[in-house]
Amino acid sequence: MREKNILLGHGSGGKLTHSLIKELFFKYFENPVLLQQCDSAILGVSEGRLAFTTDAYVIDPLFFPGGNIGKLAVCGTVNDLAVSGAVPLYISAAFIIEEGFPIKELEEIVSAMADEAKKAGVQVVAGDTKVVNKGQCDKVFINTSGIGIVEEKHEHISSGSKLEAGDKVIISGSIARHGMAIMAVRNFGTFKTDIQSDCACLNHLVQEVLSSGARVKFMRDATRGGLATVICEITQHTGLGAEIREEAVPIDENVRGMCELLGFDPFYVANEGTVVMVAHPDDADAIVAAMKKNHLGKGAAVVGELVADHPGKAILQTAIGGNRIMDMLAGEQLPRIC
Amino acid sequence: MREKNILLGHGSGGKLTHSLIKELFFKYFENPVLLQQCDSAILGVSEGRLAFTTDAYVIDPLFFPGGNIGKLAVCGTVNDLAVSGAVPLYISAAFIIEEGFPIKELEEIVSAMADEAKKAGVQVVAGDTKVVNKGQCDKVFINTSGIGIVEEKHEHISSGSKLEAGDKVIISGSIARHGMAIMAVRNFGTFKTDIQSDCACLNHLVQEVLSSGARVKFMRDATRGGLATVICEITQHTGLGAEIREEAVPIDENVRGMCELLGFDPFYVANEGTVVMVAHPDDADAIVAAMKKNHLGKGAAVVGELVADHPGKAILQTAIGGNRIMDMLAGEQLPRIC
Repeated sequence: MREKNILLGHGSGGKLTHSLIKELFFKYFENPVLLQQCDSAILGVSEGRLAFTTDAYVIDPLFFPGGNIGKLAVCGTVNDLAVSGAVPLYISAAFIIEEGFPIKELEEIVSAMADEAKKAGVQVVAGDTKVVNKGQCDKVFINTSGIGIVEEKHEHISSGSKLEAGDKVIISGSIARHGMAIMAVRNFGTFKTDIQSDCACLNHLVQEVLSSGARVKFMRDATRGGLATVICEITQHTGLGAEIREEAVPIDENVRGMCELLGFDPFYVANEGTVVMVAHPDDADAIVAAMKKNHLGKGAAVVGELVADHPGKAILQTAIGGNRIMDMLAGEQLPRIC
Repeated sequence: MREKNILLGHGSGGKLTHSLIKELFFKYFENPVLLQQCDSAILGVSEGRLAFTTDAYVIDPLFFPGGNIGKLAVCGTVNDLAVSGAVPLYISAAFIIEEGFPIKELEEIVSAMADEAKKAGVQVVAGDTKVVNKGQCDKVFINTSGIGIVEEKHEHISSGSKLEAGDKVIISGSIARHGMAIMAVRNFGTFKTDIQSDCACLNHLVQEVLSSGARVKFMRDATRGGLATVICEITQHTGLGAEIREEAVPIDENVRGMCELLGFDPFYVANEGTVVMVAHPDDADAIVAAMKKNHLGKGAAVVGELVADHPGKAILQTAIGGNRIMDMLAGEQLPRIC
């Protein structure tokens, strides 16, 4: 493309849009379905039920240690499918771009999306581009929707219908890395901390655990609202209680330090490549072992369990021996974290 | 909800987000799949191939004669599926909302989405809400993605693989209504013109035509870039020529007048409820007759044909007897039209 920056015409549906699609999006997202340029992608799917999810990404800054908005948009949607027990197959990508945005940066974002999609084994098969006048959006927003297939034996996972007291809560890695990586950049700018976002596609790790035969009853990636919000959602949804042992929850020292420095509770800080699984107690150790075989699950640990006591309430057993109720966030902790 | 305006906390994933989801989105989009509140909607689909599409909506103003951004977002995605020969089944809705946006207006938008989805026979089964700080987006952007099922006998429609010289070009109604309705509001504010957007879901009309057995070879809704862009896409994609008779193309008098007043060529102005079909010549009249039975197809007409001459070029035969090449738009005619 001759242009260096995005023009309104790149969103017109005319010549500039077609050149942007062909010279940028097709370059990275090349696959036969997308190249047909139809109004809808026509897809073959094997037997099973369909999983369908959508997410808008408005993260600020666009580029952060461990990823960028494009990588995040692919990982987030792949993970929403994966934690529903689905094998992710296809994703769509819709861009809202501010007039004047550098095409070089857009290319970096698109290229990261393509890399991540390839690693996850999903195809970008549908897309859309809108350009708004300068000042009417903040640089770039991306929406990804995704389709996957759920085998019948995993259908109960997304609803958590088989959860019961005694089930163990397992986490795949150390928490709060994504949120603190973003906050470090926002607060200290180019000053480099060594905190990296955990942003990653979890579908291979999840499939490895599921194919081990472990009785996984529920999964969720602990994104906005962090681990605490996932636990609260489980207790509110099932009416069961939950007990989480603070000492068992893995937190990297540099992340813990940044949380203390900035006054955040790591249990509420967003993750983007960390999954919470709830499973039959007899299978918990096997799940941790299966997770540890994957480089994304090295920090896996059993962190607590569901209980019949204090129904609907999640209790954190603190390191100093006290008990604290974990509730959902009342306000906004970190705007534009994803 | 007690709040009158959207707060950043409505996008936090915490308590306020949950109340927004339950008290607004569930109120209007109530269906068993959505109410499960899973990371992905788990869907049953019948036999056939899947159609999948996505679109971001950034229209300004949000409310216009004949619809609002919510109705538009449902119609646009339903139509992308319908013109691919698919029966639309499920849609997702993701909102990016500016802090401070009135919840009353959001409710109007969501309610219009629900109405339109009901009319079209689709369910909103997945969603997402992000809130950005004041000034970081312009009021509300909506992304809708959609899933439909394509019967095998209609699979060729989305690619246009059966198009050939002699095929007739048919349009379902008078053109340029959406674009001129928006421009009228932008230019004359509250001064009321009688131009209404054509914004509507075309899936029932399309299915009525398809089930009549007519040999439809290609369809596209003439959105951004208008009728001219659809014709150019056909000629570029097939390498065939096209001849469109200007006098045959229906244009309402008030729309024509507004185009002249503001200096727009109606052939390039956006539509949001008008479909272009290309069909076997023997079936063209039957298609027009089938369209006319639906209230959205009252203005249907055969407007031209594909030809072996001037390959790859679209020619407009003007009312005064001349010929004019129709090319794609080079720049941006109407930013934020959809």
